[in-house]
Amino acid sequence: MKAELISIGDELLIGQTINTNASWLGSELALQGIQVKWCTTISDDKEDILFTVDQALNRSQLVIITGGLGPTKDDITKHTLTEYFNTELVIDPTVLGKIQDYFRLRGREMLEVNTMQAALPKACTIIPNNHGTASGMWFEKNGSVLISLPGVPYEMKGLMKDYLLEKIRTHFNTKALYHKTILTTGIGESFLAETMADWENRIRALDLGLAYLPSPGLVKLRISSYKGEADAPVIDGFFKEIEEKLPQHVFGYENDTLPEVIGRLLLKEGKTVGTVESCTGGGVANAIVSVPGSSIYFQGSLTTYSYELKTKLAGVNPATLEKFGAVSEETVREMAIGGREKLGVDYCISISGVAGPDGGTPDKPVGTVWMAIALAGGCITKKINLGDNRERNIQMTIFASLNMLRNVLLTKRS
Amino acid sequence: MKAELISIGDELLIGQTINTNASWLGSELALQGIQVKWCTTISDDKEDILFTVDQALNRSQLVIITGGLGPTKDDITKHTLTEYFNTELVIDPTVLGKIQDYFRLRGREMLEVNTMQAALPKACTIIPNNHGTASGMWFEKNGSVLISLPGVPYEMKGLMKDYLLEKIRTHFNTKALYHKTILTTGIGESFLAETMADWENRIRALDLGLAYLPSPGLVKLRISSYKGEADAPVIDGFFKEIEEKLPQHVFGYENDTLPEVIGRLLLKEGKTVGTVESCTGGGVANAIVSVPGSSIYFQGSLTTYSYELKTKLAGVNPATLEKFGAVSEETVREMAIGGREKLGVDYCISISGVAGPDGGTPDKPVGTVWMAIALAGGCITKKINLGDNRERNIQMTIFASLNMLRNVLLTKRS
Repeated sequence: MKAELISIGDELLIGQTINTNASWLGSELALQGIQVKWCTTISDDKEDILFTVDQALNRSQLVIITGGLGPTKDDITKHTLTEYFNTELVIDPTVLGKIQDYFRLRGREMLEVNTMQAALPKACTIIPNNHGTASGMWFEKNGSVLISLPGVPYEMKGLMKDYLLEKIRTHFNTKALYHKTILTTGIGESFLAETMADWENRIRALDLGLAYLPSPGLVKLRISSYKGEADAPVIDGFFKEIEEKLPQHVFGYENDTLPEVIGRLLLKEGKTVGTVESCTGGGVANAIVSVPGSSIYFQGSLTTYSYELKTKLAGVNPATLEKFGAVSEETVREMAIGGREKLGVDYCISISGVAGPDGGTPDKPVGTVWMAIALAGGCITKKINLGDNRERNIQMTIFASLNMLRNVLLTKRS
Repeated sequence: MKAELISIGDELLIGQTINTNASWLGSELALQGIQVKWCTTISDDKEDILFTVDQALNRSQLVIITGGLGPTKDDITKHTLTEYFNTELVIDPTVLGKIQDYFRLRGREMLEVNTMQAALPKACTIIPNNHGTASGMWFEKNGSVLISLPGVPYEMKGLMKDYLLEKIRTHFNTKALYHKTILTTGIGESFLAETMADWENRIRALDLGLAYLPSPGLVKLRISSYKGEADAPVIDGFFKEIEEKLPQHVFGYENDTLPEVIGRLLLKEGKTVGTVESCTGGGVANAIVSVPGSSIYFQGSLTTYSYELKTKLAGVNPATLEKFGAVSEETVREMAIGGREKLGVDYCISISGVAGPDGGTPDKPVGTVWMAIALAGGCITKKINLGDNRERNIQMTIFASLNMLRNVLLTKRS
């Protein structure tokens, strides 16, 4: 079965409001086994609404409209649907009573426009709104269902959770879509696709869906099945192959974040971490403390931008800086080893690079980053080459250094 | 003229990714005087793409498609458009050279799929992508224009800003909407609206547009005019009123960021800044170094999560921590004064708070944050009370501390 969303509102089209309703509905419906195939945003314009509703009802079994149910003049969805379904508006006494209660409870004066919110199309089933004054409406036509909901996100979500998710599942007798996501970092989308070409072909041959979902620093791979949880072992098998092929890149599943994964590994080992950062300016530390409870394994960090503070705070030898420069293997090694001692931690990440957009030299162009991790009995170093976007370079470096720590922690364990 | 957006990607339909591209494009086109009338999201499905593109080109003069240009098999936009425009793919040597450079510079192996990204439809004008490997495409048909862009937001924005906004404006000979934006921090949207109700009414009475654009930590107020630059003095007058009414909250104009504003003030004074952070974990330092060239006024910072490091690195008296706790006026004062000396800076920001979601106590509930700024001859402190969302608390604290520094710098000057 196909579902379709229609979002109504000028504020969405001119980018004043981001359409989070559509993504929430898409995600909730997917979990009910209902695939949203189209999602259209239009303005509060009668002709556009009539055209889009008609097109949607002709190709989709379920159409959900959000927005345009407010009490003001520019909210015309209810009147337009009344016309489309060739019906009339009638005051519903139950809804009117609820609206009156709503205003009485809040000590606010009730206006004529609010009374009119109880006038609802005769042809629809009214869906009660316990979070506001605009009722939901459930229409049926030629076997398809059209649901109209208020655009205010918490009212819309309330109506869906209170009544509609259940009602939709029952009406269409659907089975939830099953999907799992594996998370990779430090490997580009295209390299991943090439490496896993055979794997991908085998997934598609089994009629499973595969999506590459890249965002700065990571690529998520999602496998989905319309057959439901029965496919779980198959999907797990595919994920196990990736883990075995790319252990240094696969860092987690579903909603895991790299700082969370590292936090769990550190907690398990009873170890602590600190950082000595230059070009990331505390960004790695900031990522680590984004995890609730990180104070157990994170005690502190140093940001040493200047040569002077690299020496004073982290104990880097001035001669090293003089000879090799701040962005060098030798300097990050001394930053990590010195920081480990000063901060009194088990693992110390250090970073020094040319974030850009300026400051590059022929042998150290913008995007050159050195990183190191000091641990009991040693220090490992790594160099990465990034692009010329400062913000992105900082973000990618944070990911790369955290993944380097993850790999160190895993190697130590095995 | 009418414009239409088509976003391609299953991840948008099932709600795994929020469609921020559409809102960014809607907002940018509005500023060029172009109104987006429809915005459709569809999956990577050939028939859906063909149908939607055809419908869009029949009703809109400008159609922008995002997504589906990646190197993997599920990215079919380019092939589908090649079919729709009845043309063929040809390797473009310039694009191929750029892709080869892209991989060479990053020291990464170039794959067959990447070479194929240089194969582009003969019938289109190629729009160079300086931020990735998927080129933009500009097609024309019966007087309408269709532009295909990669879905990765920073690549899409790069193509628009580098070439397309200008090219679109020239091609359609549109008149940009004149607008100016003033930036406020530390005051909520509804409080701002309440405080400025009369101001707002006077703006609207002059037929000017007013938009409140809130994001975590700040609210942008944009006034727009269809009459063009002639309205500039009027808009400036309204902004001057706000500046005078809320000098502690207005921190800049247009694309200013708080770290940039502070950077300019520090450069002007020839002063330096450092931070000693607890709950923000280096986030304030990270914000400061987001500005290119910040190394002139930022030398380094300390993140002192544990009692021990507060004492060892920043010189906080253990008795102070014992008596008042880490989240206290006394502790942040000693952190700031101690940090100022250790880091050798003119201004030192210190922060200690309960970011949550756990760790609150009856007298210091989650969201309690103390901050201080040490300067020559003194130290000022401030307490703020936030909510229970850790990420948001950290973000809001970063803004609040930077704005506190801004106000200190302005007071010192006057």
